[in-house]
Amino acid sequence: MPTDLSALLGYPAAVLTTAAFVPQAWKSWRTRDLTGISLPMYALFTLGVALWCGYGVVIGSPPVIVANGITLVLASLVLGLKIRSVSA
Amino acid sequence: MPTDLSALLGYPAAVLTTAAFVPQAWKSWRTRDLTGISLPMYALFTLGVALWCGYGVVIGSPPVIVANGITLVLASLVLGLKIRSVSA
Repeated sequence: MPTDLSALLGYPAAVLTTAAFVPQAWKSWRTRDLTGISLPMYALFTLGVALWCGYGVVIGSPPVIVANGITLVLASLVLGLKIRSVSA
Repeated sequence: MPTDLSALLGYPAAVLTTAAFVPQAWKSWRTRDLTGISLPMYALFTLGVALWCGYGVVIGSPPVIVANGITLVLASLVLGLKIRSVSA
């Protein structure tokens, strides 16, 4: 039953890697402490997640669009706060 | 040509979201400044990426295994440094 096992691993994987950015975005927003956050990481990551969204649209996959859409919003928030803290 | 467009978006997306963790891991390793890093984020994210690796094995997808394997090493490093900084 490879299909069942793949779903058993894939869905929790998608939920975890998406939900992970909630505590990071919340922490960054609340504390405005962005010193340990890498600007290149969030620049590359946000661009990558935006491309994943486009990929989801092209292949017509709602889960890929939704998961990456949520991550895009959260990662963009962290990126924006980091840029503001660097230029402040 | 949806296949060409999906490859055009998907491969750069995978490279970017994987490569993004290189500057973060390097910054965390070099500065040992983990104050802005969210522990719950890296705990959830590392577990999620490990599941993605398992998912890649089950569906037999080398790109999924390789991309998430690299991310797993880098995210684990940041998680380990964060745990050490919290318990120090």
